[in-house]
Amino acid sequence: MPIEQKVDLGRLSLNQITTDRWSLREAVEGCLRADISWIAPWRNKVAEAGLAESRRLIRDAGLRVSSLCRGGMFPAATAAERQARLDDNRRAVEEAAELGAEVLVLVCGPAPDRDIAQGRQWVAEGIEQLVPFAREHGIRLGIEPLHPMYAAERSVVVTLAQANAMAAAFSPDDVGVVVDVFHVWWDPDLYSQIERAGEQRRIVGFHVSDWIVPTPDMLLGRGMMGDGVIELRRIRQAVEAAGYTGPIEVEIFNRAIWDMPGDEVLALMKQRYVEHV
Amino acid sequence: MPIEQKVDLGRLSLNQITTDRWSLREAVEGCLRADISWIAPWRNKVAEAGLAESRRLIRDAGLRVSSLCRGGMFPAATAAERQARLDDNRRAVEEAAELGAEVLVLVCGPAPDRDIAQGRQWVAEGIEQLVPFAREHGIRLGIEPLHPMYAAERSVVVTLAQANAMAAAFSPDDVGVVVDVFHVWWDPDLYSQIERAGEQRRIVGFHVSDWIVPTPDMLLGRGMMGDGVIELRRIRQAVEAAGYTGPIEVEIFNRAIWDMPGDEVLALMKQRYVEHV
Repeated sequence: MPIEQKVDLGRLSLNQITTDRWSLREAVEGCLRADISWIAPWRNKVAEAGLAESRRLIRDAGLRVSSLCRGGMFPAATAAERQARLDDNRRAVEEAAELGAEVLVLVCGPAPDRDIAQGRQWVAEGIEQLVPFAREHGIRLGIEPLHPMYAAERSVVVTLAQANAMAAAFSPDDVGVVVDVFHVWWDPDLYSQIERAGEQRRIVGFHVSDWIVPTPDMLLGRGMMGDGVIELRRIRQAVEAAGYTGPIEVEIFNRAIWDMPGDEVLALMKQRYVEHV
Repeated sequence: MPIEQKVDLGRLSLNQITTDRWSLREAVEGCLRADISWIAPWRNKVAEAGLAESRRLIRDAGLRVSSLCRGGMFPAATAAERQARLDDNRRAVEEAAELGAEVLVLVCGPAPDRDIAQGRQWVAEGIEQLVPFAREHGIRLGIEPLHPMYAAERSVVVTLAQANAMAAAFSPDDVGVVVDVFHVWWDPDLYSQIERAGEQRRIVGFHVSDWIVPTPDMLLGRGMMGDGVIELRRIRQAVEAAGYTGPIEVEIFNRAIWDMPGDEVLALMKQRYVEHV
């Protein structure tokens, strides 16, 4: 048995969806109380607080921003709508820059109809159009492949191989990939694609949660680390071996966890992070 | 625009789960009334009717058996339990032979714990142990990759690439792959893997249904052809171009469809098959 190297608590980041009932201010204050040094805000929460105020809250607390969630959603039926999506992505880049995030996470979007190949083409074109603007603002784009069960509603990008292939058209300084265990744990090519991403210095984010059995809900059924079947430590060590030593976001969509007091969620996720990640 | 070649109604097969409220006798009689010439019985329904009686019912009706559903479920925590699974698979082969099915569909099973790689190894070993017995009985085994959302509960085999790779260890006369649109439609490698399966004469079954948006349920959320986002005709034509011209099973797990009178389901599925497959 290899010695299992423990993960550094200093890398732990609260992805804000995990405490979805909290405002950005509450999430920042919660991180301070729990001694968590990274946060990944969501754009709707930033908009509620106001961008300048969000920046001030995060900066005053001394928190670092692991990523901004999220850009993407590129495919649309008309050129005008695709342009509107691109404009929104530019705003997301500006917000990420304002907040000091290094990465804008891209949830690439579904196809507007049955033509998934066309949807994928629009994603590639959208990223290509966004890259120069993101580069100017010092923001890396992180393509996050989503679980194939979201292919019709959230993302036509569904495997790490596909994300790696799309990212390969750009400099690793501009476009990388985000590895979220919930989305990729099932993939027979997972470890070879993590390795490939590492060779190209493409990994720009690592998200953890768990896959619960039975799965209570397609969207809100993610589990706390340790409550499911994902080999979290093995994947974390593979991601590290591939050169990624940045923040590790806990990103859990789960109504039962949302209904817990936020401070309890943070305490539990710290404990589970040490035990399982 | 290419001319869209219509599919032959003579290839239509009723997978018995589509009319789950019907006994085998009722399903056979329903196929006769609807002029459907193929059926894919499920083992639990065959057991209810009795194997010899099932054979008689199907033979007397002049129906052909596109496949028996299902064998598989190879991984288990103990050697004794894995042996019990293998014994059950041998019974499934005997039943398939008795019913005159050419193919036994394999739903390969989940891992008994977090070690998905070990689960996959047990699947490979289980198939290897089953092949000589199946060959003696004239039964081909059809590895059916399931949607990755079932990886924890039903099958560690989740992509056509993986099924093709597992099948490659055996003669195409012994082991093939089953292409079910619901399970594979999202896959960026779908068409290349259909082509690969065709080059090796591996395709031994083709199942149709649809992916509804929003998906009402992870297990019972499949749709009737035409009600969802799957490019059915494109996939059917790819499977044909890869050399598969055998029966096409309609396999729909959906409570609303189960609640419809069976004759209406068969009428609707014939209509949708002509329009969309």
